[in-house]
Amino acid sequence: MIKIAVLGHGVVGSGVVEVIEKNKSAIEKKLQDKIEVKYILDVRDFPDLPYSDKFIRDFSIIEQDKEIKVVAEVMGGVNPAFDFVMRCIRSGKSVVTSNKALVAEKGDIILAEAKKYEVNFFFEASVGGGIPIIRPMHRCLSANEITEIYGILNGTTNFILTKMLQDNMSFPDALELAQQLGYAEHNPADDIEGFDACRKICILASLAFGRHVHPQYAFAEGISAIELEDVNLARKAGYEIKLIAQARKAKDNKLIVFVAPALISSDCILSQVKDVFNAVLIRGNVVGDIMLYGRGAGKMPTASAVVADIIDEAMHARYMPGFGWEPCNENIVQPQLEALSRYFLRFKNCSLFQIEKVYKNINVILEGEQIAFITECFSGIEHCKMQEQLEAAGAELLSAIRVLDL
Amino acid sequence: MIKIAVLGHGVVGSGVVEVIEKNKSAIEKKLQDKIEVKYILDVRDFPDLPYSDKFIRDFSIIEQDKEIKVVAEVMGGVNPAFDFVMRCIRSGKSVVTSNKALVAEKGDIILAEAKKYEVNFFFEASVGGGIPIIRPMHRCLSANEITEIYGILNGTTNFILTKMLQDNMSFPDALELAQQLGYAEHNPADDIEGFDACRKICILASLAFGRHVHPQYAFAEGISAIELEDVNLARKAGYEIKLIAQARKAKDNKLIVFVAPALISSDCILSQVKDVFNAVLIRGNVVGDIMLYGRGAGKMPTASAVVADIIDEAMHARYMPGFGWEPCNENIVQPQLEALSRYFLRFKNCSLFQIEKVYKNINVILEGEQIAFITECFSGIEHCKMQEQLEAAGAELLSAIRVLDL
Repeated sequence: MIKIAVLGHGVVGSGVVEVIEKNKSAIEKKLQDKIEVKYILDVRDFPDLPYSDKFIRDFSIIEQDKEIKVVAEVMGGVNPAFDFVMRCIRSGKSVVTSNKALVAEKGDIILAEAKKYEVNFFFEASVGGGIPIIRPMHRCLSANEITEIYGILNGTTNFILTKMLQDNMSFPDALELAQQLGYAEHNPADDIEGFDACRKICILASLAFGRHVHPQYAFAEGISAIELEDVNLARKAGYEIKLIAQARKAKDNKLIVFVAPALISSDCILSQVKDVFNAVLIRGNVVGDIMLYGRGAGKMPTASAVVADIIDEAMHARYMPGFGWEPCNENIVQPQLEALSRYFLRFKNCSLFQIEKVYKNINVILEGEQIAFITECFSGIEHCKMQEQLEAAGAELLSAIRVLDL
Repeated sequence: MIKIAVLGHGVVGSGVVEVIEKNKSAIEKKLQDKIEVKYILDVRDFPDLPYSDKFIRDFSIIEQDKEIKVVAEVMGGVNPAFDFVMRCIRSGKSVVTSNKALVAEKGDIILAEAKKYEVNFFFEASVGGGIPIIRPMHRCLSANEITEIYGILNGTTNFILTKMLQDNMSFPDALELAQQLGYAEHNPADDIEGFDACRKICILASLAFGRHVHPQYAFAEGISAIELEDVNLARKAGYEIKLIAQARKAKDNKLIVFVAPALISSDCILSQVKDVFNAVLIRGNVVGDIMLYGRGAGKMPTASAVVADIIDEAMHARYMPGFGWEPCNENIVQPQLEALSRYFLRFKNCSLFQIEKVYKNINVILEGEQIAFITECFSGIEHCKMQEQLEAAGAELLSAIRVLDL
């Protein structure tokens, strides 16, 4: 009998208990053993649930129970999750989590502690909900040097951009719809400003490149400045606008890690990821491009990944050396303005002649009162200088969005 | 030091040796050990290769060498691969393979032998080349009951269909181009008649549903009857034509497993898989739909998956119980004509009035000398009866293609 504890009974936590009940016979067949949720830790009471007797409020009961070998941490937030996870590990228990804030902030410390106590710390559900990403990257692409990762890692923003494109909705209207449908929080900043996607790409960058990439060093730009006009002009030029999280190797052992809107060619499969779906494109030096796609959030998809981690731990209960990454206290992220990119730009109060004097070879999309065009490739620093040059001549920049050439 | 043997030095076999050399330092860092290809079995000589001293022609040298713990079988074909694989297993060696014919034909027997000898038999590369499919299905979706699988599992046919759609090429012209580019064999029947995709979907069905699905029971229909006109009419109605391999649960413990061309809505991500790329859409009862996408064939992508299996085996050298499926000698595949589907049909020598009398509610795409339309959902058997009814009245059926509603 495998006995587990679940820390937290929110959306994901209740999903974990439900999935184990729903697919119990199939799961037990795989495990060749029985599985039982012994404890659920939550400060609230749930007297009406059929498993109300499993709720406890005192974490130390779990910590001290030798029967518990696997703990699912699905509370969210860094505290007190971090303290609980470290105490589980020190009691010889493996931990699985869906908590992206915890993994992004404290992953290196937790992984080091797990190594010391020879237990596992798994976090498949922390990026991309139910989409298999962490394990395929680590186990299936292990013969590759991973060079680049591009992800649509936030369902809320992808839903909003899809609605803008398909239904010609403005950003505020699409955001309101997302809130009505429960896809966006009442305070949506974490999603729409790119912070959520940023934590996830930091986790993927850490795993791919072997050193902890702290979110504080990674740049995040959201979609709140995207106007319907940009979406339509991009479409006209053969592109879709997506919020893209990217991680790449740069020079001098540095990494490029940031989140920002980008124009992607409509021919690229990543541009076809719609609504609340997420996807990650991973480029390996042997396999080329692979893409993993699915529901990146939600109760059941996320619970699917948490329970898969529990099953993996229960079936192969043994410390997996080599999984994870090393601590890294220096800033290994290259300033994002040094990264090269083509740009989609929209100006007013200037002539095409003035623009061409500054940007040289451009691909004009719109010419009239406003001028929209796509530039050649240059750094963000050069872009700023060119923009200042035009602004000094009276031009007004309305939009500047990177073009991602995959 | 991990010493391995590679059986076969064809396209994939040479790729395996190259990948290990190319990424040796990264692989050894993961393994925390050295890795070396000790033997390469091939009947041919390769005197000019830097590793020509590794070639042997006598399999029993590998069989008897206790240093060899992992063998990569990349010869292709059922014989003599099957004999060699069984002998490796009986000598206590784990085997990894890219050989889809072997896994589809003999998977159950090999897995049973591997279980008996407590060694592993891995075959990530046998389906979808470098795309992680087998391990994500087994390890990451383990909390799910998998209900349906839909795959574009053959790059050659997907390339041909893409060329027909994008460049308005006829089937024979697109096939010729595929042959010129090396995507299609001189004798392309295995690809274009769907047999290759059929072996792959049988492997996925076996893994998902736990019982061996023998290719002899699964129906395969290729793309050689698809005309450019069908591709264009489908596009007009909002669909793309793809060669789809599918596996689903049916009634009475039976399975639906077949390969056939199908119209897929242009809104579905699977329809956006172009050129030689492959993709598998897997539907789980908890996670919903996930899709795995990438290069489904080719030297380096396939070698990427073979070497990942070698690394997995070397890192976690321990028998993995619960991976694989049970033997099944009965035919568990439902006759494909019993499966329900909407159909795209194209007739000549009949009137819309005659068609509507037989098919009732239809969605007309073309009306004129020819009539093209999409029907409601019915079984293949009903479809045959309706077709006969119209043919008895003088109509001629020009095309009949399933519509896949995902």
